[in-house]
Amino acid sequence: METLSESKAFGGVQGIYRHASSATGTDMTFSVFVPAHESGTRLPVLWYLSGLTCTHANVTDKGEYRRACAEAGVVFIAPDTSPRGEGVPDDDAWDFGQGAGFYVDAKEAPWSANFRMRSYVEDELPALVAAEFPAADLSRQSVTGHSMGGHGALTIALRNPDRFRSVSAFAPIASPLECPWGEKALGGYLGPDRAKWRAYDACALIDDGARVAEILVDQGDADNFLSAQLKPDLLRAACDRAGIPLTLRMQPGYDHSYNFISTFMADHVAWHAERLRK
Amino acid sequence: METLSESKAFGGVQGIYRHASSATGTDMTFSVFVPAHESGTRLPVLWYLSGLTCTHANVTDKGEYRRACAEAGVVFIAPDTSPRGEGVPDDDAWDFGQGAGFYVDAKEAPWSANFRMRSYVEDELPALVAAEFPAADLSRQSVTGHSMGGHGALTIALRNPDRFRSVSAFAPIASPLECPWGEKALGGYLGPDRAKWRAYDACALIDDGARVAEILVDQGDADNFLSAQLKPDLLRAACDRAGIPLTLRMQPGYDHSYNFISTFMADHVAWHAERLRK
Repeated sequence: METLSESKAFGGVQGIYRHASSATGTDMTFSVFVPAHESGTRLPVLWYLSGLTCTHANVTDKGEYRRACAEAGVVFIAPDTSPRGEGVPDDDAWDFGQGAGFYVDAKEAPWSANFRMRSYVEDELPALVAAEFPAADLSRQSVTGHSMGGHGALTIALRNPDRFRSVSAFAPIASPLECPWGEKALGGYLGPDRAKWRAYDACALIDDGARVAEILVDQGDADNFLSAQLKPDLLRAACDRAGIPLTLRMQPGYDHSYNFISTFMADHVAWHAERLRK
Repeated sequence: METLSESKAFGGVQGIYRHASSATGTDMTFSVFVPAHESGTRLPVLWYLSGLTCTHANVTDKGEYRRACAEAGVVFIAPDTSPRGEGVPDDDAWDFGQGAGFYVDAKEAPWSANFRMRSYVEDELPALVAAEFPAADLSRQSVTGHSMGGHGALTIALRNPDRFRSVSAFAPIASPLECPWGEKALGGYLGPDRAKWRAYDACALIDDGARVAEILVDQGDADNFLSAQLKPDLLRAACDRAGIPLTLRMQPGYDHSYNFISTFMADHVAWHAERLRK
């Protein structure tokens, strides 16, 4: 692992790191904020998965999580959203290919060689963090994310209920099976058999028996993608069918941008921190 | 004035605007955050002047001022740092020309036609804000800034003590007369007669009799530019000579980046807000 930069922020250290990923076959860049802590103290970890077109940098620059993480003593980790670079397949569309990994392990050519973001985020990066960041206590993890990354957070938590203490999302894609972004991405990466998509759809996972203790979602009601792509009502219906307590807060006047995310970031950090302290 | 974007943030509105500037002869872009407020209520204004290479966007994205401004009820305005675009003179150096206006009215060709950032920030933009933002109460203004913009904030406040209730700075250039950045910029924009530079040097203005009630400065002690360019000791000495109360906080471990600025931004907003309420 290579340190690209480290800078003091809110008493802790905001770092940017790069490593050669075996999951994706590429170099991958990610950011980690480690709050100030006494030597030997270990801190719980909050993962943040980003949305379409983003890298680690968007939330690192605009997410306004550092003050809340410093106060709560929570490590904050932001991975990239896909493999990148020369030799990595891409698509002219902004919602498919590089910047749009959808947190799946692709099965279709040409994507399957590199687009293995499920393995990267579920397995490889946590192992790297455990080895390289002694302050990060991976026995206490939570996960959140935005839009495509909200879908990522929900599906990763539902597939790994024993690993994550809590899961939340900002304006998540509730059901890739039921929206154009999801149909394009899962069809492209996984092929036409929609049964294979169900492991990457929060609502389908819930209907197929996956459970988490509770879910927190914030969603702006002025979000341009609300009705055609995000569809929080599908998540509400699935949670109702399964008896999963969902706190779905429709936030009046907020859009899909980091102005929305940053407004509610401190709430999410505090909510996770409370569950990570138990 | 054209609205490029408006987005709800922390209960208020973060906007980006563009207008044709008569001071610079170019289109100029700036950002304004207006906190939530009751109709008819007017809010005080905090100006933020940015550093070398920056536009309005750096602090708008990374400054983390919105929560503090929303809580204190303060309008936050971030202008650009120079005229830009085709037909505007530029220099290959990153510390001169576009992105490096130094908040002066240039006298030397080819800069004098467009590089009139003193007139722009002191006169034209405040008049535009007064006309276009009815919530902004320009009878209550304060000013802050970073690096080159800290120099801008200090010099504008010292030249206009009746206009600004308070002035602070993050890692300001204390004395352009006494550092390579300043010598290059003021020499280039104003010519070789150093007497003409004194209106653009905080320490020289103080020595020449300018006064403000007090100054707040935060400065990271791990800032790469500290000893060669910023030289806060010169400001301390000038304030001591003049009897101006200077709170100069050396912040251990902090660098020159927005990780430093964002850490102390809420402190500065609250400090100004207290003085703007009087």
